[in-house]
Amino acid sequence: ASPLVYKMAMAGPLLLDSLTLAERDERTKSEQAVTEASPMRLRMEKFIKEQQKEIVRALEEVDGTPFRIDAWQRKEGGGGITCVLQDGLVFEKAGVGVSVVYGTLPKPAILKMRANHKNIADAENVPDSLEFFAAGLSLVVHPKNPMAPTVHLNYRYFETANPDGSPGAWWFGGGSDLTPSYLFDEDAIQFHKALKEVCDAHDKDYYPRFKKWCDEYFYNKHRGESRGIGGIFFDDLDETVRDKENTFAFIQDGLKSFIPTYIPIINRRKDMPFTEKEKEWQQLRRGKYVEFNLVHDRGTAFGLNTPGARVESILMSLPLTASWQYMHEPAPKSREARLVEVLKNPKEWV
Amino acid sequence: ASPLVYKMAMAGPLLLDSLTLAERDERTKSEQAVTEASPMRLRMEKFIKEQQKEIVRALEEVDGTPFRIDAWQRKEGGGGITCVLQDGLVFEKAGVGVSVVYGTLPKPAILKMRANHKNIADAENVPDSLEFFAAGLSLVVHPKNPMAPTVHLNYRYFETANPDGSPGAWWFGGGSDLTPSYLFDEDAIQFHKALKEVCDAHDKDYYPRFKKWCDEYFYNKHRGESRGIGGIFFDDLDETVRDKENTFAFIQDGLKSFIPTYIPIINRRKDMPFTEKEKEWQQLRRGKYVEFNLVHDRGTAFGLNTPGARVESILMSLPLTASWQYMHEPAPKSREARLVEVLKNPKEWV
Repeated sequence: ASPLVYKMAMAGPLLLDSLTLAERDERTKSEQAVTEASPMRLRMEKFIKEQQKEIVRALEEVDGTPFRIDAWQRKEGGGGITCVLQDGLVFEKAGVGVSVVYGTLPKPAILKMRANHKNIADAENVPDSLEFFAAGLSLVVHPKNPMAPTVHLNYRYFETANPDGSPGAWWFGGGSDLTPSYLFDEDAIQFHKALKEVCDAHDKDYYPRFKKWCDEYFYNKHRGESRGIGGIFFDDLDETVRDKENTFAFIQDGLKSFIPTYIPIINRRKDMPFTEKEKEWQQLRRGKYVEFNLVHDRGTAFGLNTPGARVESILMSLPLTASWQYMHEPAPKSREARLVEVLKNPKEWV
Repeated sequence: ASPLVYKMAMAGPLLLDSLTLAERDERTKSEQAVTEASPMRLRMEKFIKEQQKEIVRALEEVDGTPFRIDAWQRKEGGGGITCVLQDGLVFEKAGVGVSVVYGTLPKPAILKMRANHKNIADAENVPDSLEFFAAGLSLVVHPKNPMAPTVHLNYRYFETANPDGSPGAWWFGGGSDLTPSYLFDEDAIQFHKALKEVCDAHDKDYYPRFKKWCDEYFYNKHRGESRGIGGIFFDDLDETVRDKENTFAFIQDGLKSFIPTYIPIINRRKDMPFTEKEKEWQQLRRGKYVEFNLVHDRGTAFGLNTPGARVESILMSLPLTASWQYMHEPAPKSREARLVEVLKNPKEWV
């Protein structure tokens, strides 16, 4: 057994039982570096914080403007780091956020989660409450140039704690999707190809399944069109799908593929010439992005309804500016019309 | 009995029973002018369509730009008229819409409505479906000048039909509220005073009750602030509150007070000087208006979830442009800070 496990065993259950999950994790982190033997909670936290730094650095390099970095605490437990670059040279708004939340699930929430995760509690013995841990990295990048696509990414880990502090139920979720105002097939193909490669390295079924899931999830139902040209989306990846270690490896590969995929796309598009009309079209597409995030996105709704949530971190996903024109229709056979056509009928890109 | 009632009695239940409520009403309208003896459905429809014309005329006169007028049908029953003035001289976007919907409530919807309206069906004898009628006028006006407030108004009537075509349950709802970016006490007082006068003429309890209801309803819970400086809001005004005739009279007075209240306010503000910074603040307030409408407004959510809904008519309430800046805070003791202070702690204006 690793020294950490030894140490925890020595501390004895009586002492640890009096601590919350957050306090246990704080203690563990203060005593010892996070390694592969550490609890997944700490490994995920460490990984997403490292990735946040790398992504911020890569985007700063493209833009030439530093991010504003806000570390914050959530008084109910946990906290996060929100990095935002606003009104830069290349990016209208880029937000890269990490949040690490410790809390307690009340019984109704446990019962609801049982629908997808039977092992969260015995049907005959559902506890009145359960401690939980949730950590994730979210990013949204809205470039200024209407030829450059908006990108969104999120990877997250959720775990409940047994009364003795050992991990109970767990699952990973995540994905990434691209939202262009002007469609360049080259970008769409490169984006999907990169995600397919990541998926295929872990499971050949992942890409087709998660690509479809993405098309279905990022769908503006009231408009009858997708938010963008998709990518991958998945949730509830638990031991019924694959073991924790392999799923974490998949999540890591997904997140690490962001920089090498998006940076070449933004570099190709950021300095392209565009007209005032094209900028106007981008603003209309931004309006529909806002509609999806505020009307349909479960993550945003969950965030806004979480007590003590940091609203500015949740809504960093909204663009700096957006527009709504009554009854706007792109001209037939225009580039704008072609985008809408693809949004109404999602394509296979690879 | 009026000629219409006589005629309907003569037509006999057997013939009428084979028609839908919409068909019955179409027939009645084609045979006879709408009078005080007509069913409330037709009186409400006639009244809101007249008011729509008057309001459109009054706003056109202020702006100097004609509205675009779209009449539309809903294939599931009913239709409406949507009037929008976009990017005018005074108004960024002004929408005045009337909708008249005929449809069928499924049993779950009937059961839900029983919570507030016991007489919609006997507890022991809830039908599998009920025909319903809903008609309303909605308007939202977003002026260009940041010193001029956005205004919203809605008055609506809902009725279910008994199997013999006679009215079953019914209720009115509505109200009006003001959303300034810069607070002029004079405007807020005039707006509330006008609504209080309308309320007081019908029931001294209405204004305090409906003012409070408005503050509670138009509340951006996730921001901890009201959308604007309020007005009145009410729903479910049925026979447990007051009879149908008097409630309709109240609705009429409320709607008719719009022009004499808002037109002087817009005329005072539309040509005031303003800075770029003040325009930027207006755009940020617009962003919060969008948040309320897309995240919290039950009317918008209901509309977007109604099969066959005309999305462009529902979302005409959104401004032409809006903005979101991460962590924007008004300077202490500024005019912007004073507005936020009032939004966090709604005032009594009269």
